[in-house]
Amino acid sequence: MSNPDVMDKLVSLCKRRGFIFQSSEIYGGTGSVWDYGPLGVELKKNIKDRWWHAMVRSRDDIEGLDAAILMHPRTWEASGHVAGFVDPLVDCKVCKGRFRADKLEDAKCPQKPSKQPGQHDACALTEARQFNLMFKTHMGALEESASIVYLRPETAQGIFVNFLNVQQSMRQKVPFGIAQIGKAFRNEITPGNFIFRTREFEQMEMQFFVEPGTDMEWFEQWKAMRMQWHLDLGLSRDRLQFHQHRAGELAHYARAAFDVTFDFGGTLGFQEIEGVHNRGDFDLTQHQQYSSKKLEYFDQVNNKRYVPYVIETSVGADRVTLAALVNAYREEAVEGETEGRVVLGLHHALAPIKAAIFPLTKKDGQPEMAHAILNDLRNSFTVDYDETGSIGKRYRRQDEVGTPFCITVDPQSTTDQTVTVRDRDTLAQERVAAGSLKAYLAAKLV
Amino acid sequence: MSNPDVMDKLVSLCKRRGFIFQSSEIYGGTGSVWDYGPLGVELKKNIKDRWWHAMVRSRDDIEGLDAAILMHPRTWEASGHVAGFVDPLVDCKVCKGRFRADKLEDAKCPQKPSKQPGQHDACALTEARQFNLMFKTHMGALEESASIVYLRPETAQGIFVNFLNVQQSMRQKVPFGIAQIGKAFRNEITPGNFIFRTREFEQMEMQFFVEPGTDMEWFEQWKAMRMQWHLDLGLSRDRLQFHQHRAGELAHYARAAFDVTFDFGGTLGFQEIEGVHNRGDFDLTQHQQYSSKKLEYFDQVNNKRYVPYVIETSVGADRVTLAALVNAYREEAVEGETEGRVVLGLHHALAPIKAAIFPLTKKDGQPEMAHAILNDLRNSFTVDYDETGSIGKRYRRQDEVGTPFCITVDPQSTTDQTVTVRDRDTLAQERVAAGSLKAYLAAKLV
Repeated sequence: MSNPDVMDKLVSLCKRRGFIFQSSEIYGGTGSVWDYGPLGVELKKNIKDRWWHAMVRSRDDIEGLDAAILMHPRTWEASGHVAGFVDPLVDCKVCKGRFRADKLEDAKCPQKPSKQPGQHDACALTEARQFNLMFKTHMGALEESASIVYLRPETAQGIFVNFLNVQQSMRQKVPFGIAQIGKAFRNEITPGNFIFRTREFEQMEMQFFVEPGTDMEWFEQWKAMRMQWHLDLGLSRDRLQFHQHRAGELAHYARAAFDVTFDFGGTLGFQEIEGVHNRGDFDLTQHQQYSSKKLEYFDQVNNKRYVPYVIETSVGADRVTLAALVNAYREEAVEGETEGRVVLGLHHALAPIKAAIFPLTKKDGQPEMAHAILNDLRNSFTVDYDETGSIGKRYRRQDEVGTPFCITVDPQSTTDQTVTVRDRDTLAQERVAAGSLKAYLAAKLV
Repeated sequence: MSNPDVMDKLVSLCKRRGFIFQSSEIYGGTGSVWDYGPLGVELKKNIKDRWWHAMVRSRDDIEGLDAAILMHPRTWEASGHVAGFVDPLVDCKVCKGRFRADKLEDAKCPQKPSKQPGQHDACALTEARQFNLMFKTHMGALEESASIVYLRPETAQGIFVNFLNVQQSMRQKVPFGIAQIGKAFRNEITPGNFIFRTREFEQMEMQFFVEPGTDMEWFEQWKAMRMQWHLDLGLSRDRLQFHQHRAGELAHYARAAFDVTFDFGGTLGFQEIEGVHNRGDFDLTQHQQYSSKKLEYFDQVNNKRYVPYVIETSVGADRVTLAALVNAYREEAVEGETEGRVVLGLHHALAPIKAAIFPLTKKDGQPEMAHAILNDLRNSFTVDYDETGSIGKRYRRQDEVGTPFCITVDPQSTTDQTVTVRDRDTLAQERVAAGSLKAYLAAKLV
């Protein structure tokens, strides 16, 4: 029933093949922070570019934004984060460990890993106190408390404070949205599961401003559109589910909320990768109050003025990257071979390398012809060149990183200017004229 | 002789037309931090994508990386930033101002703006002390000094600590490079000049690892290639100059250093937009020492082991964005009109909007035909639609944001399926078949 746990295998593959490394690994790592390697950065970039195209470039009614990580500290008073973005924590005076008071049953005492904190004699837990999850720093030339700034814990507030700047400069009419991709930071006490929950992460958020009363209709539309986006990325339908926030679960500002959850397999199971929220007028109203600036929209056609409601779609770029990897990972037997193959069956649009070019041997003009093909394809696709090891070994290397097509230059190629193209998934090999490879790939890579 | 100062006009245009807004403007702004609006984010993305293509995707010998902002604190001891990334500061006990001791002549006393600090009676300056420019924060569950982390002041160190991870996972051979684009942070005491010097900024850095002894040859190659990249962006040849770091100016680790400088006009004049540095083996050797991990390369062909030298190219994405804007801004008289036009003569590849589509009037099927064209072009180019105001006014709007082509649907269009295409720079108008617009633009937009 449940999908297998492939996380350990993925962590290993990601390091070995240049997708994801532990941050500052030579110094023992930075807690729950990860670096994207050469293939990981392409995979994540493909996901981000696809989101940007779907949300911004393909629509008239959404504008892009790239607001700064460092915002005015009043922002976080208005948003409620200074007062409310907290976890209740207890410290142990003996082991110096810090634990979430509401998650003690998941925590282990560092000195007695078989026990929970509080379960053995030497343990001395303090009273629970509120710990804010925002990273705090100081900015500027004046040594005053006013110079405290936070690393943003979400990108959304950069959109709210720019609502009128964007609406007016782009002459947009409600309903319209603002979208952005950017880093956010949370000093999580219990992060983990590889890049699922990290202290530094990247969000892709869109806030859609609508007239009050039309909000639930737009909410339903965005809910459906966002689920479809994940399906279009190639995530399996049976690994995707909505989770509805019920009355007790809803944030105080939310009128309705659904999570898109993905089954990461094993004990992790279904977890949120995106949230779709009806935030009402909470955010703009708060910022109006804290900034004493009007954040209203004037509807010229109907001659009325109002604070728009907001439908938010908020997706974690790292979580979608992890979902795409988990979804794509498979081990297969190979006919006639004892060792099987590992395949990342990534959607073509997400694959970090679209095609790899191999000369069968390192002589007879094959490397030269392979390089000519490489350079011809390079402006249109991300491509790789490999001339080391057997062809079988080279296929396995590309399968493992999800390359959809392998192009081999063989003795026949230098004679008749054709090459073989091998499909990652079907394993079918086709003879294609070298001169038409660009068109061939363009047609296949959709 | 010197180029005009267009900065104030640009700041105004950038806000009005959705390129760049002051960060957290409704709260009075965040000091020297800026938000990119809908057109600014596209302009900057075009610059970043172009760099990524030139440095990573078009080459076999450079790999991409996206390392985290939060790194292990030992990184910054090894790099020398904890001890050495400091400015000497003095505080005034009266006005609470903080000033760079070595730049007092540029500073103004907040209470007597006509005077420099120290020049009037009430002033009470402290002794100079060293102020570290790194933003500092605390990470994680343990309340110890070990949990201090810094916001990276440069992206380069993320590359150095991943040198072997990348080399081994991608099976690269020296000489090869690692490139990344990412945010960095410096608590500058005297930031300014719009997005020229900001506290939060984006770097595009590449470290090229070479065999000692071949370093000056590679240095000269990279110096030439990077200057050419700026020229290829359309920056005027007479606004670009090299500035060589002489003996007294060279950083202690640098064997040679040149800046690419751009003339921003007015009193700002020529300023660094990129640095090309021969860093020798300083960085890898430091990280070896501080991490006790070998960071050597083994040359299998010649059976020798060494710590590579590094040629670094480091360019500010925000500075190039500003240079592109300054370079592109021009005011022109228009024949037969009293008001002139403002044009952003951006390189086609950088223009946030490639083409705008106008129906001449809002009737007779023109808006429908214009929308059909819009939707047809949208998957290939960033496009805009505008039906409000006179055609002349719509042209001016697009000129001001640098749109290379304006496509007008007029009465003839709905009869013979042709449209006029107007060129931003030549003002020439051409009649083009609507069905061939995609190919027409693809050919022009190079």
